[in-house]
Amino acid sequence: MTEHPYLHPDELLGHEIAPGSFSYSALDVSLYALGIGAARDGLDRKELQYVFENHKDGMKTLPTFGVMFPSHAMSRGRLPGVRYNPENGLHGEEILELFRPIPTFGKVSCRGRVKGVYDKGSGAVIHIEATTSDDQGELARHETLLFIRGLGGWGGDRGPSGKTNTPPARNPDVVHREAIPENQALIYRLSGDTNPLHIDPDVASAGAFQRPILHGLCTYGFASRAVILHYAGNDSDRFRRMGGRFANPVYPGETLVTEMWQEAENRIVFQCKVAERDVLVLSNAHMELR
Amino acid sequence: MTEHPYLHPDELLGHEIAPGSFSYSALDVSLYALGIGAARDGLDRKELQYVFENHKDGMKTLPTFGVMFPSHAMSRGRLPGVRYNPENGLHGEEILELFRPIPTFGKVSCRGRVKGVYDKGSGAVIHIEATTSDDQGELARHETLLFIRGLGGWGGDRGPSGKTNTPPARNPDVVHREAIPENQALIYRLSGDTNPLHIDPDVASAGAFQRPILHGLCTYGFASRAVILHYAGNDSDRFRRMGGRFANPVYPGETLVTEMWQEAENRIVFQCKVAERDVLVLSNAHMELR
Repeated sequence: MTEHPYLHPDELLGHEIAPGSFSYSALDVSLYALGIGAARDGLDRKELQYVFENHKDGMKTLPTFGVMFPSHAMSRGRLPGVRYNPENGLHGEEILELFRPIPTFGKVSCRGRVKGVYDKGSGAVIHIEATTSDDQGELARHETLLFIRGLGGWGGDRGPSGKTNTPPARNPDVVHREAIPENQALIYRLSGDTNPLHIDPDVASAGAFQRPILHGLCTYGFASRAVILHYAGNDSDRFRRMGGRFANPVYPGETLVTEMWQEAENRIVFQCKVAERDVLVLSNAHMELR
Repeated sequence: MTEHPYLHPDELLGHEIAPGSFSYSALDVSLYALGIGAARDGLDRKELQYVFENHKDGMKTLPTFGVMFPSHAMSRGRLPGVRYNPENGLHGEEILELFRPIPTFGKVSCRGRVKGVYDKGSGAVIHIEATTSDDQGELARHETLLFIRGLGGWGGDRGPSGKTNTPPARNPDVVHREAIPENQALIYRLSGDTNPLHIDPDVASAGAFQRPILHGLCTYGFASRAVILHYAGNDSDRFRRMGGRFANPVYPGETLVTEMWQEAENRIVFQCKVAERDVLVLSNAHMELR
């Protein structure tokens, strides 16, 4: 293993992130649901329970609301042993596991640590694991993989292969198409990710994008709704686990195509493409239901 | 004047509403702007300043954000001298005057009083006047006319005629069409008006509506954007005053047609119709610019 000027894996590995807490209301839950396209047609009673605090069947929290807990509760601050420019840090992969449905309001606490540092050649991967609890006990487990461009080649372990949850060789069992409105990133960002890359045309072009891109976790949320709709009869309480890799950016206004394969009764492998460009945007993804 | 069992104009007239205050952030300003359809096409830099706190030309607050100050700051509570079922209380008219542009965050205080009680035959009108101030002094003046069905015929004054700001006999000078998305009321309500009439199909049908209706003040906001776009070059700082009457409900998904007539350099008379039903929804409306 060679010495790298901007990466010291031994300092990074095992680092415990300062724990913190986050309180949220039913309004936050509704805003998030609208941010990932729920109840788009307004009248669709199937998704009204995600946006209406007094729904007669009870309000429900869309499971992927949980991905925001660690970033809201913990200031990741500066991780020790690594230095990089923000535009070189990409969200590579996100895994969310829920032990029970997320309450529609409450207070959660998170703690996390750096579980792994991998050398992918063209860059480094920092693997962060976190857990979320509330007053009822453990609620969620999170894995976030950050890909740092340019920090590879120091002779470290490549880490686990990303070739999991590869779609089978047959055509998808179910295909769900959904247009993403032009203003989707503007709504999504009000849930807390106000990175200007998703709203400022100048910042986007400085990052070599044609225009502001959709948040990867917004695409993640759209995809989760498609799988829950088709395989869980839109019963979000059946969500157990989801994971996926951010393969390419999505632009608001494009059409998201979610291709799904049922691998077992409660296990679905899926991927998302953008119809207009035939580009894979969320790959090697899966959802487990209960 | 005859005695009315549910209305005692002498108790109501001059009643001072308990003053109160309201704090808001740039996030609230953005959410409101999205709630009245601003930056719908995402890329439209003309309206990005209403939804982006770090816009290079500075963020701006859409003027009609001000209509919410009295309801947020003051609990109107129960007005003395009047009793009615909520479904019989309709928002009749709203006038907003701004003395300067609304800051993009801050704390405001409101006070208000019942300025008039009128007998319209089929019902009563309660005319409420309010003022909003912040640490820079007086910011806004409000007039709200509530129409209470069934509380008329007690021999009171009819009040001022509603036949002001009537469009001239010529065709409109400018016509602006804008489709209202199906989920518009779901976004708008997160700014604080969570009346179930705008989201719950059962409550809507109990009120004899086909489905949940758009908030009147959301229509009001859409109309304000049309006038500001066409007559103020989208410079919201030029807003001085706006008023209009709520003539009929709008359903999300319909197309709002704003017909405008320029009466003087800085005075526009306008009205809004729904294209699909050719029904007048906002009538006798005007805007004054500076």
